[in-house]
Amino acid sequence: MQAEIITIGDEILIGQIVDTNSAYLGKALNKIGISVQQITSIQDQREHILQALSEAQSRANLVIVTGGLGPTKDDVTKHTICEYFNDTLVLNKAVLANVEALFKKYISTPISDLNRNQALVPSKAEVLMNYYGTAPGMWVDFNDTVFVFLPGVPFEMKALVENEVLKRLQKRFKRPYILHKTILTYGLGESAIAQKIENWENNLPEHIKLAYLPNLGKVRLRLSAKGNNKEKLEQEVNNQIKKLQPLIGDIIYGFENDNPIEAIIGKMLADKGKTVAVAESCTGGLLAEKITSVPGASAYFKGGVVTYATQTKVDILKVSQTVIKEHSVVSEPVAKAMAENAKKIFNTDFAIATTGNAGPTKGDSEEEVGTVFIGIATPQKVYAQKFNMGNHRIKVVNKAVNKALEMLQQEILNF
Amino acid sequence: MQAEIITIGDEILIGQIVDTNSAYLGKALNKIGISVQQITSIQDQREHILQALSEAQSRANLVIVTGGLGPTKDDVTKHTICEYFNDTLVLNKAVLANVEALFKKYISTPISDLNRNQALVPSKAEVLMNYYGTAPGMWVDFNDTVFVFLPGVPFEMKALVENEVLKRLQKRFKRPYILHKTILTYGLGESAIAQKIENWENNLPEHIKLAYLPNLGKVRLRLSAKGNNKEKLEQEVNNQIKKLQPLIGDIIYGFENDNPIEAIIGKMLADKGKTVAVAESCTGGLLAEKITSVPGASAYFKGGVVTYATQTKVDILKVSQTVIKEHSVVSEPVAKAMAENAKKIFNTDFAIATTGNAGPTKGDSEEEVGTVFIGIATPQKVYAQKFNMGNHRIKVVNKAVNKALEMLQQEILNF
Repeated sequence: MQAEIITIGDEILIGQIVDTNSAYLGKALNKIGISVQQITSIQDQREHILQALSEAQSRANLVIVTGGLGPTKDDVTKHTICEYFNDTLVLNKAVLANVEALFKKYISTPISDLNRNQALVPSKAEVLMNYYGTAPGMWVDFNDTVFVFLPGVPFEMKALVENEVLKRLQKRFKRPYILHKTILTYGLGESAIAQKIENWENNLPEHIKLAYLPNLGKVRLRLSAKGNNKEKLEQEVNNQIKKLQPLIGDIIYGFENDNPIEAIIGKMLADKGKTVAVAESCTGGLLAEKITSVPGASAYFKGGVVTYATQTKVDILKVSQTVIKEHSVVSEPVAKAMAENAKKIFNTDFAIATTGNAGPTKGDSEEEVGTVFIGIATPQKVYAQKFNMGNHRIKVVNKAVNKALEMLQQEILNF
Repeated sequence: MQAEIITIGDEILIGQIVDTNSAYLGKALNKIGISVQQITSIQDQREHILQALSEAQSRANLVIVTGGLGPTKDDVTKHTICEYFNDTLVLNKAVLANVEALFKKYISTPISDLNRNQALVPSKAEVLMNYYGTAPGMWVDFNDTVFVFLPGVPFEMKALVENEVLKRLQKRFKRPYILHKTILTYGLGESAIAQKIENWENNLPEHIKLAYLPNLGKVRLRLSAKGNNKEKLEQEVNNQIKKLQPLIGDIIYGFENDNPIEAIIGKMLADKGKTVAVAESCTGGLLAEKITSVPGASAYFKGGVVTYATQTKVDILKVSQTVIKEHSVVSEPVAKAMAENAKKIFNTDFAIATTGNAGPTKGDSEEEVGTVFIGIATPQKVYAQKFNMGNHRIKVVNKAVNKALEMLQQEILNF
C-alpha cells in the first residue's frame, strides 16, 4: 500500500505560499496505516498534470491531489482529469444545490455560470460534498489506483479528509498499522547521541526505523514501525525505548504528542471545572490565541490582557509602579504581580503571565534580548521563573508560549 | 532554463514537519529569473534518491536538493550521490577545519569520527562552506545540469543560498527576468471577478499569466510575466493593471508586498505618531498577536484585552450590563462599547474590537455561528459593522482579524 500526494498550483512553485496541505495529509494518512512515499508539487498546466498523474499511478495505489479546482480559467485540473480518465464532465445536482445554498447564505453577488460550473464533475467520479466551498471533492477508482481530488483551500480540504476521505480509505484498502513515537532530547548533538546508542541502533529490528531530527539545540529521535498487529508493535517500540533509557535517559525530556499542549490543558481544566486567564507582555496575545484555538475554550478560558506598554501594566493589571521602578518591567516580581492580579481581575483558578524582551531592541528594560520571566498563579501559590530564549524574535515568543503552557500543565497536574 | 527542487526526508512525508525550504527556494530563484517547475519530496532512501535525481535531470538544467546530509545513519544522501555521479568521497580539509572550529566554539562534547566524516565530499563537487553547521553545501556540474546539495536545516540552507548559491547561478546561467505582481481585492468572489474582467483576461499577451488566489474572503490576482527586458516587462504589467482599474477599481485595496497588512499599518501608525489598542472576544488574542508580530510594535501598540467570558466585558472593559442584556453580547452596541472603552482604558488614538460567534456552538448569544461585529474607535468617531464570516471556526477568526485590520487601515488612511 503506497500513496503519493500531488499539489497543484504555481503559487507553491514560486514560493507565494507554503504547502501545508501535504504535511496535514501525510500525518492523517499515516494514522490509518498509509505511507506516503512522494509529494510532488506541480504547475497548473495540462501536460504537467497528465505527467504527474501517470507517474504517480505507476508507483502508488492511492494518489491524493489538492488544488486547481477553482472556477476560473487558470484552474485546468477538472478538464485535465477528464482527459486522463477518458471521461466527460456531467452536472451533479447535489453539488449544484450546495453551490446555490452557499451563495444564498454567504455571498451577496448573484450566482453565475462559472459558479454553477463547479457542479460539473467527471462522470466516473464519486462526489465528496464540500460544505465550506463550491469545489467538490472527487473520488475516482481507476485501474486499481484510487485518485482523490480535493480543493486546495486548507480548511475545505481538511473537512473533506476528516468527514469523507479517511473512512472511505479505511474501507477500500487493507492497511498495516504505522506507529511513530518521537523522543525529545535536549543537551547533546545528533552525532554524540548516535555514538552513545550505536549498538542499540544496530540491533533494531528491520521493521523499526530510527531518524534523527535536530533543530535549535534539541534532537528528536523518531522511531517508526510498521506491522499488522497494533498491540505487538506498540509493545516492541516501548521495549526498544526501555532499552534506550539507560543509554541516554539523562537527556530525554519527553515524547512528542499529537494533541497540542493547549488542547491537553483545555481538557484537563474542563474535566476539573477550573478556569484560567493570561496576562501577556512579550508574547503579545499568542498565549491567548493558542488557548482559544481549541474549540470549546470558553468553558475554561475567561480572558486575558496584553499589557504591551509598561504603563498599561500599572493601569490595567494594577502592578505597582514602585515594583516596576525598583526591579524593571522585565523581572520576577513583575511577572508574579501580573499573574496574581490577572487571576484576581478575571476571577479564575489559574493565571499565567509573560514579561520579557523579544527583541530586536531592549524596550523598557535593561535585561538582554531573549530574557523572559513567566509568572504563574495557582489556587495555592504564585511564582515566576526566568529564561533565556535566544536572540530571534519569533523564536523567543514561541518558546515563551510553549514554556508557559508547560508550566501551566505541570501546575494543573499537581493541583 | 528550468529548475526543480528535491527535498529529502521522511519527516516531510509523514507530516512531522512542513517543508518551508521549498517555498523559500522558489521565491529566491524567481527573483533571479529562474522558474521552478516541480518540487519533489522523497524518502531518505537510496533507490528513491537515485530515481528522483535522474527524473529531475531529464527535465531541468538546475536541480536543488535539500536535506539528508546529517552525520547519522539515516542520512544516506552523500553516498547515494557518489553512486549517481560515479564518484568517490574525498576528505576536504577546509570543511574539516570548519567542523573542528564549530565544535571548539559551540559544542561541549568531544568531536567524533561521525562529525569528521562531514568533511568527506564527492571529488567532483565544489564545496560551499557552511559556517552554521557541519554539513557543507555541494555544487556538481554534471552533463549540462547543475546539482546543488544543501543541508535541510532552514537557516543553514538560507545562509548558503544567500552567500553562495545565488551568485554562482547568476554567473552560470543566462536567465530571463521574472516579474510577479499581486493585486489584493476584497468584496467579490473569484468567479464574480472573472466575469468582470473576462475581456481583459482574454486579451492578455502570451507572456503575462493571470492566477486567482482566493483565501478567507479576499481574492489575490497575480500577474506573472517573463521576458528579457526588465523595464519593458514592468511597463507592460503596469499597463495591464491600468486597464484593470476601471473594471474592478472599487475592490482593489492594494498590492501584495513582502509586507503583511499588520506591518503596513504599523508603519503608518509609527509615522503619524499614533497608537492603537484592541479588545477581543471571538478572535481570542489573534488580533493582538498579529499586531505584535511586527518588530517595533511597542512604538504604537499599547495593549489589548481578550474578554472571552461575557462577565469580563463588564468587569474589565466596563461594557454596561444593561446593554449586553438588551442587545446580547454579540451585537453592534457591545462592539462599539468595547472599542470605545478600550481606547479610553489604554489611552490610545485608535481601538478595534471584535465580538462574535466563532463556533462550533453559539455561546452566550443567539446570533448564529459566523456572526461577527467589528467595532472601531478613532479620534473622531466610534462605529461597528456586522459580518457573517461563514461557519468554520478557524475561518471565522482569521477573516474577522483580516477585516478588523483592513478597517483600521482605512481609518488611519482617512485620518
